[in-house]
Amino acid sequence: MEFTDGGVTAAQGFKAASAAAGIKYKGRDDMAMICSEKPCSCAGTFTSNIVKAAPVKWDMQIARERGSARAIVCNSGIANACTGVMGLEMCRKTAAAAGKALGIPENEVLVASTGVIGMQLDMDRVSAGIEMMAPALEDGIDAGLRAARAVMTTDTKPKEAAVSFTVGGKKAVIGGMCKGSGMIHPNMCTMLCFITTDAAISRELLQKALSEDIVDTFNMVSVDGDTSTNDTVLLLANGLAGNEEISSEDEDYKAFKEALHAVNVDLCRKIAGDGEGATALFEVKIIGARTKEQAKILSKSVVTSNLVKTAICGHDANWGRILCAMGYAGVDFDPERVDLFFESAAGRIQIMEDGIASPYSEEEATRILSEPEVTALADIKMGSESATAWGCDLTKGYIAINADYRS
Amino acid sequence: MEFTDGGVTAAQGFKAASAAAGIKYKGRDDMAMICSEKPCSCAGTFTSNIVKAAPVKWDMQIARERGSARAIVCNSGIANACTGVMGLEMCRKTAAAAGKALGIPENEVLVASTGVIGMQLDMDRVSAGIEMMAPALEDGIDAGLRAARAVMTTDTKPKEAAVSFTVGGKKAVIGGMCKGSGMIHPNMCTMLCFITTDAAISRELLQKALSEDIVDTFNMVSVDGDTSTNDTVLLLANGLAGNEEISSEDEDYKAFKEALHAVNVDLCRKIAGDGEGATALFEVKIIGARTKEQAKILSKSVVTSNLVKTAICGHDANWGRILCAMGYAGVDFDPERVDLFFESAAGRIQIMEDGIASPYSEEEATRILSEPEVTALADIKMGSESATAWGCDLTKGYIAINADYRS
Repeated sequence: MEFTDGGVTAAQGFKAASAAAGIKYKGRDDMAMICSEKPCSCAGTFTSNIVKAAPVKWDMQIARERGSARAIVCNSGIANACTGVMGLEMCRKTAAAAGKALGIPENEVLVASTGVIGMQLDMDRVSAGIEMMAPALEDGIDAGLRAARAVMTTDTKPKEAAVSFTVGGKKAVIGGMCKGSGMIHPNMCTMLCFITTDAAISRELLQKALSEDIVDTFNMVSVDGDTSTNDTVLLLANGLAGNEEISSEDEDYKAFKEALHAVNVDLCRKIAGDGEGATALFEVKIIGARTKEQAKILSKSVVTSNLVKTAICGHDANWGRILCAMGYAGVDFDPERVDLFFESAAGRIQIMEDGIASPYSEEEATRILSEPEVTALADIKMGSESATAWGCDLTKGYIAINADYRS
Repeated sequence: MEFTDGGVTAAQGFKAASAAAGIKYKGRDDMAMICSEKPCSCAGTFTSNIVKAAPVKWDMQIARERGSARAIVCNSGIANACTGVMGLEMCRKTAAAAGKALGIPENEVLVASTGVIGMQLDMDRVSAGIEMMAPALEDGIDAGLRAARAVMTTDTKPKEAAVSFTVGGKKAVIGGMCKGSGMIHPNMCTMLCFITTDAAISRELLQKALSEDIVDTFNMVSVDGDTSTNDTVLLLANGLAGNEEISSEDEDYKAFKEALHAVNVDLCRKIAGDGEGATALFEVKIIGARTKEQAKILSKSVVTSNLVKTAICGHDANWGRILCAMGYAGVDFDPERVDLFFESAAGRIQIMEDGIASPYSEEEATRILSEPEVTALADIKMGSESATAWGCDLTKGYIAINADYRS
């Protein structure tokens, strides 16, 4: 397995396009379309928020009941959430328009939206965007990159990842794109993520692989503790790699899952590192846990703490806040056995041993914490399980973005 | 029952003093002492964080096992948390020094600390502070105010409240002081709060009244979602009002609880409104809930959301974020039946009806949200229970305070 260029069009048979449809932004692309040459099995995971945006409801129906799809249509600027019956009708009309333009049934079209909650989409603009994109669908990684850019909101960078791997003697690719910068604390999956693969795999195993992987990847990302109404991960598999369809949990399935995990981790790190206002990717690893669940709860509690995140912003080794956030996580451990380390490209330093401050150099700690990717590692010495959570620092930039996002 | 001036010295027989002991700050008082003329029943509630500061451990022992106390010694600047065996020894030495200076046993002295986690106290400075304060103890509301000032850290104002009420035909007073501005998300009680009363009440009912009230008051306050290692509420009753001791849950007990609740709500609003960097007190009321627990969970989820808090900072009626935060709270309700209102001294406006935006004026909403105290009220139309949570907006000031708090 190795990383390769591109994103959602890296796998064979997937095309993409984007358009400036004027949904809300001016002078930039704000719609994207992804389409497979051939029918695909389809898997999806969705927000656990009980306030679910209309496109989430639409896609859940397709992914869960039908399990196959060919195209995804996405807009940025308006989330189509809290839009009632009319919002759901917009999804149906969007799918119908795309189905007509692409010559496929409307229930083969997945839809996704991101942006402000509560505004209705303008269907004329959405339709015009679809008319522009359908004939412009293109192969190649540039088309995928344009699609990744079109779905950005407060993101500062497009986010893509792809790996190639061997399955059943054939070379296959999994590639994906995602967006997400604020309202990021996925409790099912992150805001919007579209993954494509040319591997042949049964619909059941496609969903199983995705559902199992997101609990260790997208569900471990937090930018601000807010679980969005629109969180969606979609995974399409068109089988063009020519491998014998993966239909049991054998070595091929394992290779597929490994490749999927690599793509998802890479996308998660990109989301966390590009959190609203962030100056650093902040990774929290808990090791020595009795159970994986314990390690996850502790690492998420630390990565979510406003006080820890502001300390990371200040390059301050304020370990008391980390121990404090572990302490209120709601799981048991012995504070007086905790070892704590900070790590980055600039080195590694022990900050605490058995719950008491080590005689470390504040200067060196600050140097290590001044890198764009920093890790806090805590060993709780209770067992051999571990977990990693991804987040970012909390800065004045986050406030500036969110105190007047709508205006 | 009516509000009256003063705080911790408002009730008969309670004296206070403060001193500049140089614990960490320069040029200001950083120690406070409160002492009752007569022995008191004592109740306490403490942080649920499993990382408990040394003074929390000390006070838990006194409040739970002994149930009586005469004095409280508090310092600001250093939290005496994550300080191991030596930290607990500092508490014992502090109590011993105060006991000696006041002529009372060391296990009648409660201690409390607030400030940076992980540093050890300098016992010589603490002892010198005690030597200064013991002979300087004074009656009167000025002494109480000086004590309230001495325990401030990032607080911008001292926080006091007092009410007088009639119990068993006698006039009694409950008064209190508290501090707390960051690391405020009490899950047992808030950072430090000391309440005194001259009412006579049994130790059992004193603890019962406190324990029952904090779940609706201090446990409903959140500044930043971080539950401190030091949260402590102490309540001392010296009986000098001369009422017959309250020893059953009768009308007198009811009057006492009502007065205690009034003091606690007032202190909670003062803590929330003076949250680190806050420009506004933000109150969230959920009405029409099926159970009180459901109302509490929903109101705390909204008051804790970074995205809602930044919207309040921007005076932006971004109701989608409120509905979103209710949606991920983890309790059931129907988003399509929710009515939402904003209220302040400038008026009241309906923002949402049955889950859909009302045709409100953004301008008027912004005017209402520009007051120093704003309320969001959501009716979920499922029953008749309600709850209120208190928090504040999230501003660049919060980041500035916390990105380099230690330096």
